[in-house]
Amino acid sequence: MQPAVILLSGGLDSATTLAIARKEGFAPFCLSVDYGQRHRAELVAAARVAAALGAREHRTIHIDLNQFGGSALTDPGIAVPTAGVVPGIPVTYVPARNTVMLSLALAWAEVLGSQDIFVGVNAVDYSGYPDCRPEFIQAYEIMANLATKAAVEGWRLRIHAPLIEMTKAEIIGHGSQLGVPYGLTVSCYQADSEGRACGLCDSCRLRRAGFERAGIPDPTPYRK
Amino acid sequence: MQPAVILLSGGLDSATTLAIARKEGFAPFCLSVDYGQRHRAELVAAARVAAALGAREHRTIHIDLNQFGGSALTDPGIAVPTAGVVPGIPVTYVPARNTVMLSLALAWAEVLGSQDIFVGVNAVDYSGYPDCRPEFIQAYEIMANLATKAAVEGWRLRIHAPLIEMTKAEIIGHGSQLGVPYGLTVSCYQADSEGRACGLCDSCRLRRAGFERAGIPDPTPYRK
Repeated sequence: MQPAVILLSGGLDSATTLAIARKEGFAPFCLSVDYGQRHRAELVAAARVAAALGAREHRTIHIDLNQFGGSALTDPGIAVPTAGVVPGIPVTYVPARNTVMLSLALAWAEVLGSQDIFVGVNAVDYSGYPDCRPEFIQAYEIMANLATKAAVEGWRLRIHAPLIEMTKAEIIGHGSQLGVPYGLTVSCYQADSEGRACGLCDSCRLRRAGFERAGIPDPTPYRK
Repeated sequence: MQPAVILLSGGLDSATTLAIARKEGFAPFCLSVDYGQRHRAELVAAARVAAALGAREHRTIHIDLNQFGGSALTDPGIAVPTAGVVPGIPVTYVPARNTVMLSLALAWAEVLGSQDIFVGVNAVDYSGYPDCRPEFIQAYEIMANLATKAAVEGWRLRIHAPLIEMTKAEIIGHGSQLGVPYGLTVSCYQADSEGRACGLCDSCRLRRAGFERAGIPDPTPYRK
């Protein structure tokens, strides 16, 4: 089994991505990033998901992105919007987050001798984040294949984004078939320490609507 | 004055890059990365250099790349080579280091509203690191211009690598004209806690030869 690095946030997209990587025959090495996010419950969820889905290894790396701030997820002074999803890039956007996370995944992949990184971005039912778009992922892959010793030695790194063209309902439907334990995942931007969801932030709204459209019972403990 | 983010390691290349950014009229915001490197004296040097060269702000961000290892600079079990520079990529290569550092610079640049990142890579008298090559820097810039909210809103990020085509002697000559206090910089991969250099690692050899060829006295305290 070839090793693959899976970016695992603890939310439903990355959990589904992990299940897909396993289904495709990769040995999953899961990486979570503690970047000072408001919703720390997702890191606890990530550990549970990694264990439940048979990760070969799960690591959490710390990096203090809240030193920079500039996002509702890293600056306690910026409130998480709860009035509903609106057009445009919301204040929950974290500057360069996926670029930073993919770079950490790249570092670990090179050390592991892995040519495969999986990331659960999607560009359909999402929050308008620029670093979830296919053109970003493609440009990242080109850059990464110039960045490493492994690339110079002929290895070809692939960034897999298997959810990128799927709706949230399709992701949930597909993941359910693969046995993803969605009850262990946390999507809410302001989940409490027990992982209970607010039910009002964009992430909760997209998740809830996804389960409804998929016709699958939503296991999420919503506070509202 | 437009703000620019300068990646500042504490070595001579990044100190020269900082001086060039100032000369070009940017307000320098310096970023050092504590990634668990063996040569921690460079972080102390970075703070001195930032102060001496008038940085508007200097931050050090921590990230535990030695959790991954895979380099003589992050794994105490891998010795720093001291027998001389040889062809090929040496064991001091740190997997994805410049990709990670540029990503952190990108995050800060976006929060600052800066469109300019300076990095002191060079591809002439260097150690063969893949992430010091012009094609890497160009691919990184393309990726970064798809990665951020700022890019979507029309900002155009530039990665400045002003040393990339210069020899070490040219860098030292140019920096000396700009008043770079090279005596404050530390290049050695195994500098001691007072910043004294081994004189034998690749970085010391490249530095020493650069001063000789530039015909400028080398202020470095070498142990050998």
